[in-house]
Amino acid sequence: MATTEPAVRPPDNAGKKILMIMTTGPEDPDKTYAPFYTAALMAAMEIDTTMYFLMHAPELLVKGRADSLPLKKGGNLRMFIDMALENGVKFLACSESCRDLCDIPEGALLDGVKLVGSATLADLALEADSVISF
Amino acid sequence: MATTEPAVRPPDNAGKKILMIMTTGPEDPDKTYAPFYTAALMAAMEIDTTMYFLMHAPELLVKGRADSLPLKKGGNLRMFIDMALENGVKFLACSESCRDLCDIPEGALLDGVKLVGSATLADLALEADSVISF
Amino acid sequence: MATTEPAVRPPDNAGKKILMIMTTGPEDPDKTYAPFYTAALMAAMEIDTTMYFLMHAPELLVKGRADSLPLKKGGNLRMFIDMALENGVKFLACSESCRDLCDIPEGALLDGVKLVGSATLADLALEADSVISF
Repeated sequence: MATTEPAVRPPDNAGKKILMIMTTGPEDPDKTYAPFYTAALMAAMEIDTTMYFLMHAPELLVKGRADSLPLKKGGNLRMFIDMALENGVKFLACSESCRDLCDIPEGALLDGVKLVGSATLADLALEADSVISF
Repeated sequence: MATTEPAVRPPDNAGKKILMIMTTGPEDPDKTYAPFYTAALMAAMEIDTTMYFLMHAPELLVKGRADSLPLKKGGNLRMFIDMALENGVKFLACSESCRDLCDIPEGALLDGVKLVGSATLADLALEADSVISF
Repeated sequence: MATTEPAVRPPDNAGKKILMIMTTGPEDPDKTYAPFYTAALMAAMEIDTTMYFLMHAPELLVKGRADSLPLKKGGNLRMFIDMALENGVKFLACSESCRDLCDIPEGALLDGVKLVGSATLADLALEADSVISF
């Protein structure tokens, strides 16, 4: 679906930016895949899409973690994360959350995830055409 | 209140669009009525208001479900849903959430609810003047 | 960090407004401090920052309550609330939530918190350059 729906749309999303703020972590797996799926779809629609992970959400991005997160619909979270990354969604993790709340050691996050500070969230929010919080 | 407050306001909201994204379902009833109440109020203020339901939130819209959701403040959720619908709030439910997560059979949703795909969320978010996530 | 990061930034945020909508209360303390910290930082970046508290979130603002909310990272929530207030973040609490859901008696909220109705949320959301929901 992520690849077929955009085909019938005019390419009028160029330059548009959506920021998706993720605050849900592995404590509620079924609330985590829709955001990745939606972000992947947005990127396929040529929207510049960034996901910012804070609170317990960065734990979803620890290597190997998503592979063991089963979903009610079948499969696991990893395929949705990969779909988003492959479609060009940018993944930013809050360095304070990683350090103070999630105890994520350096190098534990998936390749392609960038650590940033909280000030970045303010900049991203103001730059975005739309902010969605999950 | 929804009907009296707007009376003292200038009608300067014409053409304004608010998208409200609902991700909370019947698992936490007291977190569900404020969004419907607020959306009803926004519509009464002549704001073009859309509620998009995903994750477990579409379960709130299954016929009969809200009637049995008691609220701490008294009453049940149904009256808030009806108030929003009567005021012209548009209700869109994510078809993937209905199918994969909520197991909602066709025809089970309240009259007036429209099923849409995830790509619609991207379009709505970009069109809206403001996006609120609950 | 809130005081050093903005020093290296151009003051191009003047006039920008961010609305932060808080729906999490004392039931999940570790999900509460990042918003106050981030809001404090935004205000330090010269962004006009407003936090709007509804559902159980106003309980965080009852005098004495945050002092007894321990955080995993150490300390308690109070210091983050104070940091936000000192930096000029505006605190608005939903009067309906305070009355119907939180049972907060008049005068129980921290100095500096203003009680407002739901219509204010609509106005704030439309005025803001960015809305973030936590």
